[in-house]
Amino acid sequence: MAHDKARFAYDGLDRTIHEKARLGILTSLMAHPRGLAFNDLAGLCSLTNGNLSRHLLVLGEAGLVSVDKSYKNNRPHTQVLLTEAGRQRFLDYLSVLEQVLKDAEHAAGTADSAARLKPV
Amino acid sequence: MAHDKARFAYDGLDRTIHEKARLGILTSLMAHPRGLAFNDLAGLCSLTNGNLSRHLLVLGEAGLVSVDKSYKNNRPHTQVLLTEAGRQRFLDYLSVLEQVLKDAEHAAGTADSAARLKPV
Repeated sequence: MAHDKARFAYDGLDRTIHEKARLGILTSLMAHPRGLAFNDLAGLCSLTNGNLSRHLLVLGEAGLVSVDKSYKNNRPHTQVLLTEAGRQRFLDYLSVLEQVLKDAEHAAGTADSAARLKPV
Repeated sequence: MAHDKARFAYDGLDRTIHEKARLGILTSLMAHPRGLAFNDLAGLCSLTNGNLSRHLLVLGEAGLVSVDKSYKNNRPHTQVLLTEAGRQRFLDYLSVLEQVLKDAEHAAGTADSAARLKPV
């Protein structure tokens, strides 16, 4: 059987973005162009403060998010934003993800048809 | 701002399946209901034999794939198949992935509109 070499390698699935928790963080930030307070982001993604900090460090080092510390009503406030580069890389990632879904759903459909063709 | 708690937690993104290489392996197998020879699968996913073996061990232990060793033309032959449980769990995973994509694309669209509304 001949196969397209590396047909299902999905090199574009950037591991920095693909990690489950980080995928949630980036989607949250994409939905909030003015950024999110650290605590709101933790709640939306169901992450502990420690876990969120750890993932923001990874995303920050990759230049995907910025973390701005300031004061709001005399209390420390941390605001997290998607950078423009982060937005672009996330959109690129999403187009690969869309291809994965298309491939898998096409495959599932094909497998269904094959099953239906089998004699009972 | 009020937020839906855990709106972007995506608990259904099963880590056993979500890992990039394993996502490729499962999509390949979904596309080949009669299974794939180990070497063909390695080629399709652009994985070394060692890496493929390692991932198949994880997927096999989770009951998602079966690895059948036999002889073909007097030479050892390894055939990899998606199990029925694996197929079902992969389909469940895909429906969560579809939700992630929908959320992110909706968010991207919203952000675009917000940007357009900003005074230049």
